[in-house]
Amino acid sequence: MKIGVVGFGYWGPNLVRNFQGTSSVEGVVCYDSSEKRLALAKQKFPSLETAKTYDELLNRKDVTAIAIATPVSTHHPLGLKALQAGKHLLLEKPMAGSAEHCKELIDMAEKNKLVLMVDHTFVYTGAVRKVKELVDDGRLGEIMYFDSVRVNLGLFQHDTNVVWDLAPHDLSIMDYIIGQEPTGVSAVGTKHFSDKEDIAYITVRYANQLLAHFHVNWMSPVKVRKILIGGSKLMVVYDDMEPSEKIRVYDKGVDIKERESIYKVLVQYRTGDMWAPRIDLNEALSLMVGEFVDAIKTGRRPTTDGKSGLKVVRILEATQLSLAQNGAMIPLTS
Amino acid sequence: MKIGVVGFGYWGPNLVRNFQGTSSVEGVVCYDSSEKRLALAKQKFPSLETAKTYDELLNRKDVTAIAIATPVSTHHPLGLKALQAGKHLLLEKPMAGSAEHCKELIDMAEKNKLVLMVDHTFVYTGAVRKVKELVDDGRLGEIMYFDSVRVNLGLFQHDTNVVWDLAPHDLSIMDYIIGQEPTGVSAVGTKHFSDKEDIAYITVRYANQLLAHFHVNWMSPVKVRKILIGGSKLMVVYDDMEPSEKIRVYDKGVDIKERESIYKVLVQYRTGDMWAPRIDLNEALSLMVGEFVDAIKTGRRPTTDGKSGLKVVRILEATQLSLAQNGAMIPLTS
Amino acid sequence: MKIGVVGFGYWGPNLVRNFQGTSSVEGVVCYDSSEKRLALAKQKFPSLETAKTYDELLNRKDVTAIAIATPVSTHHPLGLKALQAGKHLLLEKPMAGSAEHCKELIDMAEKNKLVLMVDHTFVYTGAVRKVKELVDDGRLGEIMYFDSVRVNLGLFQHDTNVVWDLAPHDLSIMDYIIGQEPTGVSAVGTKHFSDKEDIAYITVRYANQLLAHFHVNWMSPVKVRKILIGGSKLMVVYDDMEPSEKIRVYDKGVDIKERESIYKVLVQYRTGDMWAPRIDLNEALSLMVGEFVDAIKTGRRPTTDGKSGLKVVRILEATQLSLAQNGAMIPLTS
Amino acid sequence: MKIGVVGFGYWGPNLVRNFQGTSSVEGVVCYDSSEKRLALAKQKFPSLETAKTYDELLNRKDVTAIAIATPVSTHHPLGLKALQAGKHLLLEKPMAGSAEHCKELIDMAEKNKLVLMVDHTFVYTGAVRKVKELVDDGRLGEIMYFDSVRVNLGLFQHDTNVVWDLAPHDLSIMDYIIGQEPTGVSAVGTKHFSDKEDIAYITVRYANQLLAHFHVNWMSPVKVRKILIGGSKLMVVYDDMEPSEKIRVYDKGVDIKERESIYKVLVQYRTGDMWAPRIDLNEALSLMVGEFVDAIKTGRRPTTDGKSGLKVVRILEATQLSLAQNGAMIPLTS
Repeated sequence: MKIGVVGFGYWGPNLVRNFQGTSSVEGVVCYDSSEKRLALAKQKFPSLETAKTYDELLNRKDVTAIAIATPVSTHHPLGLKALQAGKHLLLEKPMAGSAEHCKELIDMAEKNKLVLMVDHTFVYTGAVRKVKELVDDGRLGEIMYFDSVRVNLGLFQHDTNVVWDLAPHDLSIMDYIIGQEPTGVSAVGTKHFSDKEDIAYITVRYANQLLAHFHVNWMSPVKVRKILIGGSKLMVVYDDMEPSEKIRVYDKGVDIKERESIYKVLVQYRTGDMWAPRIDLNEALSLMVGEFVDAIKTGRRPTTDGKSGLKVVRILEATQLSLAQNGAMIPLTS
Repeated sequence: MKIGVVGFGYWGPNLVRNFQGTSSVEGVVCYDSSEKRLALAKQKFPSLETAKTYDELLNRKDVTAIAIATPVSTHHPLGLKALQAGKHLLLEKPMAGSAEHCKELIDMAEKNKLVLMVDHTFVYTGAVRKVKELVDDGRLGEIMYFDSVRVNLGLFQHDTNVVWDLAPHDLSIMDYIIGQEPTGVSAVGTKHFSDKEDIAYITVRYANQLLAHFHVNWMSPVKVRKILIGGSKLMVVYDDMEPSEKIRVYDKGVDIKERESIYKVLVQYRTGDMWAPRIDLNEALSLMVGEFVDAIKTGRRPTTDGKSGLKVVRILEATQLSLAQNGAMIPLTS
Repeated sequence: MKIGVVGFGYWGPNLVRNFQGTSSVEGVVCYDSSEKRLALAKQKFPSLETAKTYDELLNRKDVTAIAIATPVSTHHPLGLKALQAGKHLLLEKPMAGSAEHCKELIDMAEKNKLVLMVDHTFVYTGAVRKVKELVDDGRLGEIMYFDSVRVNLGLFQHDTNVVWDLAPHDLSIMDYIIGQEPTGVSAVGTKHFSDKEDIAYITVRYANQLLAHFHVNWMSPVKVRKILIGGSKLMVVYDDMEPSEKIRVYDKGVDIKERESIYKVLVQYRTGDMWAPRIDLNEALSLMVGEFVDAIKTGRRPTTDGKSGLKVVRILEATQLSLAQNGAMIPLTS
Repeated sequence: MKIGVVGFGYWGPNLVRNFQGTSSVEGVVCYDSSEKRLALAKQKFPSLETAKTYDELLNRKDVTAIAIATPVSTHHPLGLKALQAGKHLLLEKPMAGSAEHCKELIDMAEKNKLVLMVDHTFVYTGAVRKVKELVDDGRLGEIMYFDSVRVNLGLFQHDTNVVWDLAPHDLSIMDYIIGQEPTGVSAVGTKHFSDKEDIAYITVRYANQLLAHFHVNWMSPVKVRKILIGGSKLMVVYDDMEPSEKIRVYDKGVDIKERESIYKVLVQYRTGDMWAPRIDLNEALSLMVGEFVDAIKTGRRPTTDGKSGLKVVRILEATQLSLAQNGAMIPLTS
């Protein structure tokens, strides 16, 4: 099996490196619309093959799957063409520029019985997997809130705002961990240097009292990547900037001692140990690439499949709508 | 001059201690509706005088001013009575339960030519004063955003939600530092143990692209008290949990190199030194109490006067309204 | 039972407050050679009794025990007199200025069957008690090293150096946790402002490969209070500057896989979870004072008895000797 | 100019990569005694040339200089041979296994008029350069102490102890910043798994009251890389684990107000701003390699020349001697 990698910009080299390091992959063929980038790719990875046009890449019989690491606006046309050519497809995040486009890709993949996967890399980190484990085995209890902060200085991008740039990471983590259907989205933001938001706050509602909130910001003097998850039994702080101990689990919370009525409640605080579980430090991208290749070989559905990509894009779309309506709550239906 | 302190609960003892340590104050007379609390006050502060009823306190000629540290719902009736009795008035935050009540207190104070002050203690900290200084002398540049996080475990209160409990601190800091008129407020929240919100996110809009945002939370396993302020020239992180170096000033930002149109902007990052100015470590409450006494003696207007108390309560009211309307933007008019 | 507190300087007020809060104690009688300090004591603690001379205090029949919080050089004469007068004795740390003096105090207490205790407060903190628990139940394994850093800016003292000022805290913690007999001490230091060392490094040797090391420093721009303890099974970081999670226990270490000879060893790293046990947050001083009173009532030996005070002073003496001999190893014999 | 790199183990690949990225370098020729390592080198760097024997490498006329990244014990024989063959020489740290060997290398380089440089990489970091700048322009004042901690879990090495492994970093930083001649060295250590020390404390004395101290440790559960430098005017904390703000400069210290005699001193604490200067983030190794190449081209003496390599090794030798004599102070003469 050979893999075609499209786009040798910021992320493409990482895909090439990881596909080359995957045992079942016999070779990587790269295509980039810039000849200069393609020459650079060849220099960095001497054993890499290249294709002069996208069609040349798709026409190669030995290329089983296509991985697309180009700007979002091109995900849909390039991806659709790959699926029509019978190639399995891996798309960088976010999956596409609209939910409509995501659905078309999903339909085409299903029709042609092809694997469709989105590179939500964080879902494959040891840290996120560990939190998922704590949720799934019931130790965390019922999730009460999900609070995410992802802020730093830059990088400003010309074709996208801070929401489409940063929020897909946290929305995909949220979707993976919570696994429920959100009911509405509202967002506020502000722009200072162009017509694209550089700061935004996003709220995602669920059917019960579960609330998720996201702060994304290109204008922060400090780099923060922190998620708080409040469970009824345990609470978690996931600090991705910590070199080790990224996950801290707190045996803290509030217990209801007496509840005469909704108006009369006696709560009691619970403060126990803190615990930082050992985290699997394997590179997430390598696991993601491995799962893509495994899905092609075995036909199993990858964790971050087209449906999960669509869920993230639906929230991004609703966010954009809410931003334009000054924070109005946009209902989501699945 | 003697000061009457009403309410010897959580905050009252701090007021008594600070008034007793203020040079122009000849004595403190305390009143609490609970005889038990009053006995405790007497035990803790042996030189303290006490009054058996609120009327007894108000009738004392030697008592020039009243400081009220009772639940919010009682601020208006007790405060109004004090002003009517010709006493200067200091109210704990928030000033009152509604903007309407705040206005009545302001009007009565003006009519009777009395000092009316609200104890927004944080405005008197060295840290907040230092940030104000950086803003006022122009070094920070134009403020682009104000982001505040105040979260911890508890204390749940029966008569108020997390917004009325925690947000007055940050709203008063914001108002002091920014000094402009907000144009709208939206908020989302959630409740888990009673009919009072235990988590809320508040957005305050200003006329320009300045956005302020507040995260208040009674359900966090970790205690965070952090404010980010993004200026066009400098950026500030105010971390109140730091034992020293509470204020960090970053010579970081984004400069516009070229702007052909709103669609074509070339930005450039600026990364210079970080600087933690020495902070005045005098107790804020002592400075606040001193300013109250000084305002009585000289007739000058205190920094956190009735008007600033009203501004905070108007935002709290709008927050409450927005919470009930699922985050709708509530316009503010001054 | 009434307690006589001698010396109302930096630490005396804390002793008075804690003795007054101890149930079996009927009253506290204070003596200070300065009338001004004594007047201050009376003002701060209105229910306090005072004595005009030390003899007056010792002659009082209702005073069962004496607590001495005066400069070190006075511990021995004042303490001896108290024991001769039949009073139980609590001494501030360090116990006395020489091992010889400590022994005389121990002998007199034994002769007169009186409780003799040294206020090594840190031994009574929840943090240190928790580490002791981990050592005693075998979970930590064999202790390989004890590394302590206690540095900050000031306070310079005229009558003592940084070793006698700061090291007693860490030496008493070490002695409590390790519980073995040290075999030698070496130390280096330096002085910049007077003839007293302001920086010193102390090494304490034990019979096996266990090494303890202490860095005490009055000239550090940052405040550090950190102890690392390496056990063969678990390792501990005790950071006293952390507001919570003072103790972190690491399931980390080195396992020997194969040992052909001392020259051929294959080690393997073990990296497991980190765990911050909940710590008892009761005030250590209150527990210490309680244990003193309890020892008087029941006749039991307090944890930080005269012998443990002597052990600390013997190391301080050896440190001083080694400092004078440019770091030579001074043997200790028990 | 082509560079011969000897040894493709842990550090060799970094040297190859950096030499390949240096403009005046036309090519890199690699030699490793293991054919397997050499094949790996070729695979990782396709444009790399290789040599089958060390003699083949030395015989190449186009190879101007040799960089040696092999175990310490081989530095002297390999380096001497290179210098005898007329090649400029770069040695990994530490320079050699004994001061005697260092001197022979220095003499040979001088005799043959060749550049001799030691890769003390940290000296080329922006952080260390910034501290040096503060010292050289007098802003720090007189240096009173230098305190270094470099601890982590592993890596245990079979042919060296923790001193020879970790201390060269900090000793070279110390020598570069302080630039004076040390007068003596003492050290204590302990071993738990083999006959090599895994923990050690090193003290370096200077003629005045300046003291340097080093804690190196392979058995720490946490990774610390921190240096405190106390100047009479400013104090510095250099924390290499900080992602940004590695250098913090404190306007803190002690001022002498009055000095009647050495016995009567009134000190006063000074606490001003803290300041984290912007640090040059260029890769240190690239700067070091650039300086080596520049020294060859221009004949100038590199910063970390043979003499500075010798100074570090002399301290390491004295450390070893002191370890064997239970911490005795070993005098150093230059």
